[in-house]
Amino acid sequence: MDNIRLTENDELRILDQTLLPSEEKEIRPKTAEDMFEAITSLRVRGAPAIGIFSAYCMYLLAKDIGEAEPRAFYDKLAEYGAYLNSSRPTAVNLSWAIEKMLGAAKNSLDKPRDELLAALRREAVGIHGDDIAKCRAISEYGLTLIRDGDGILTHCNAGPLATSKYGTALGPVLLGTERGMNFRVFADETRPLLQGARLTTYELSRAGVDTTLICDNMASAVMKNGWVQACFVGCDRVAANGDVANKTGTNGVAILARHYGIPFYVLGPTSTIDTNCKTGADIEIELRDPEEIKSKFFAKPVAPSGVKCYNPAFDVTEHALITAIVTEKGICREPYGESLKQLTMDN
Amino acid sequence: MDNIRLTENDELRILDQTLLPSEEKEIRPKTAEDMFEAITSLRVRGAPAIGIFSAYCMYLLAKDIGEAEPRAFYDKLAEYGAYLNSSRPTAVNLSWAIEKMLGAAKNSLDKPRDELLAALRREAVGIHGDDIAKCRAISEYGLTLIRDGDGILTHCNAGPLATSKYGTALGPVLLGTERGMNFRVFADETRPLLQGARLTTYELSRAGVDTTLICDNMASAVMKNGWVQACFVGCDRVAANGDVANKTGTNGVAILARHYGIPFYVLGPTSTIDTNCKTGADIEIELRDPEEIKSKFFAKPVAPSGVKCYNPAFDVTEHALITAIVTEKGICREPYGESLKQLTMDN
Repeated sequence: MDNIRLTENDELRILDQTLLPSEEKEIRPKTAEDMFEAITSLRVRGAPAIGIFSAYCMYLLAKDIGEAEPRAFYDKLAEYGAYLNSSRPTAVNLSWAIEKMLGAAKNSLDKPRDELLAALRREAVGIHGDDIAKCRAISEYGLTLIRDGDGILTHCNAGPLATSKYGTALGPVLLGTERGMNFRVFADETRPLLQGARLTTYELSRAGVDTTLICDNMASAVMKNGWVQACFVGCDRVAANGDVANKTGTNGVAILARHYGIPFYVLGPTSTIDTNCKTGADIEIELRDPEEIKSKFFAKPVAPSGVKCYNPAFDVTEHALITAIVTEKGICREPYGESLKQLTMDN
Repeated sequence: MDNIRLTENDELRILDQTLLPSEEKEIRPKTAEDMFEAITSLRVRGAPAIGIFSAYCMYLLAKDIGEAEPRAFYDKLAEYGAYLNSSRPTAVNLSWAIEKMLGAAKNSLDKPRDELLAALRREAVGIHGDDIAKCRAISEYGLTLIRDGDGILTHCNAGPLATSKYGTALGPVLLGTERGMNFRVFADETRPLLQGARLTTYELSRAGVDTTLICDNMASAVMKNGWVQACFVGCDRVAANGDVANKTGTNGVAILARHYGIPFYVLGPTSTIDTNCKTGADIEIELRDPEEIKSKFFAKPVAPSGVKCYNPAFDVTEHALITAIVTEKGICREPYGESLKQLTMDN
């Protein structure tokens, strides 16, 4: 089942990732509020997937605007865009996709409304199709970094559910597996929302990959045991200097990998690179509800009710800890300030 | 409520730690099987607490042996000891306490049975009382390592529940708080069994300590934020070279602390030092049920049913990552081979 799809009669359907792995259920967000909620509640998640989803949302919301004058139409669409963009602050793909859709609207603003809407549909479908091609390219590049039989550690979920076909961090493993290679993947469960346990192991085991689930705090043990030859993670925003915001705990994995001399790779499309952010310090980190730590998923709360929690959804890994950043355009290494600039200049 | 107590009429009562924090309930293990189960199910847990508990168990089991000849009596008691000792392999305090009880039995084997049993009761009560005194001394030594206002990160639970009054890793904080000092403690939730969330935050918030619960994978974020001035953890077995086995994830915390230049302290009684283990490689690491990761505590399983898990209950922190080991006899630093030897020679 696809994670995101626009049907022929323009129904937007997403696989509700909060219900996985116990239930595979599609939902159909219709209003801007439904769409906002689908993002904040992580029914759709993963930086590239949020980008694809928000592009489709912008198309459907444009259809709903009705018979406004071009200027009023554009202002209303921009208002929807600002609203969707405020749902989660850290992943840049959200604003990137919304900007692309607004750009496409602007370019066709003087055309008949049905042509304008057709252009928006093409743009959204194009963003989705591009992501599939980008994930494939990222997977090919990533696959050059590992060998048959390697052990790979991954954190959170940057597979097909978080992107489109193949995914980013899981792409090399899935592509290599298709080609008959064997890998052994250690999936961090990724507290508090357990994307590793719920989504990564679900995707990998369906693909026939040898998968072992561990708690986040066991990553150092599997590394120390010599079972890990490379770490692969996704990214939500890459700063111009190569600092990377990704799921909370990623930075810790990078520090452990450095300690054990294991290469640490970040994989993501160039749309995740935000040249407006000079360093990771410029990236806003989303703080989420303490109940995600204390009560969500549990049969009963696991901590006393009055206890404070600190629940950052992301952290920033310093570029110095990153062996390489793998994009659809190639593999960047230090100095990232230059290698990333070169990539994005080619855009 | 005490975690372990022997009543005047010889009832052994323990606070069932698996039910905390939602329920405070005492249970009363009577048979050797009850006692074994209480340890393996972590109803009683924490290396020093397991030692105290097993000492009381040995006394009660000795009472139950009945009218055997001295030799048969001793053999039966040794058999009980071997059985209890097989419940969990990693913490040395278990075998240490059982050996002490068997030694006390041997010393009084030619005495009338009621005198022998009285000697065993005294020995067990003495082990318990000694632990209280040791925790107090560890707390005093540990308190010299921090300053009013410091942020402390701790992993798992090494407070009163895991020991006796004050605890080991939490001892300096609890003692300092009694004296009017203020600390800010970050408690790793400690997956999979959540001792940090369930027990550490419970103990600290009852004592009025400013406590913030985090997921294990957020330890690097709070360190990077500059909120942590010291890490305090307990220990289950200390090898002769200073390598330390403690709750899974401890090694990762030590690596992060080293990366951020934060001192990493291990606190425990000298009974935790096992000079028979040359290095951490000689310490047996208990592997536990995968369901602890996949389903325990959750409203429904959080990973597909067929997925493998790796679930080591402990890991080993290399001595080079440990700033100091704090015992009731003083503070040891590198080279641990010598500093620990000196301590244990004084025993």
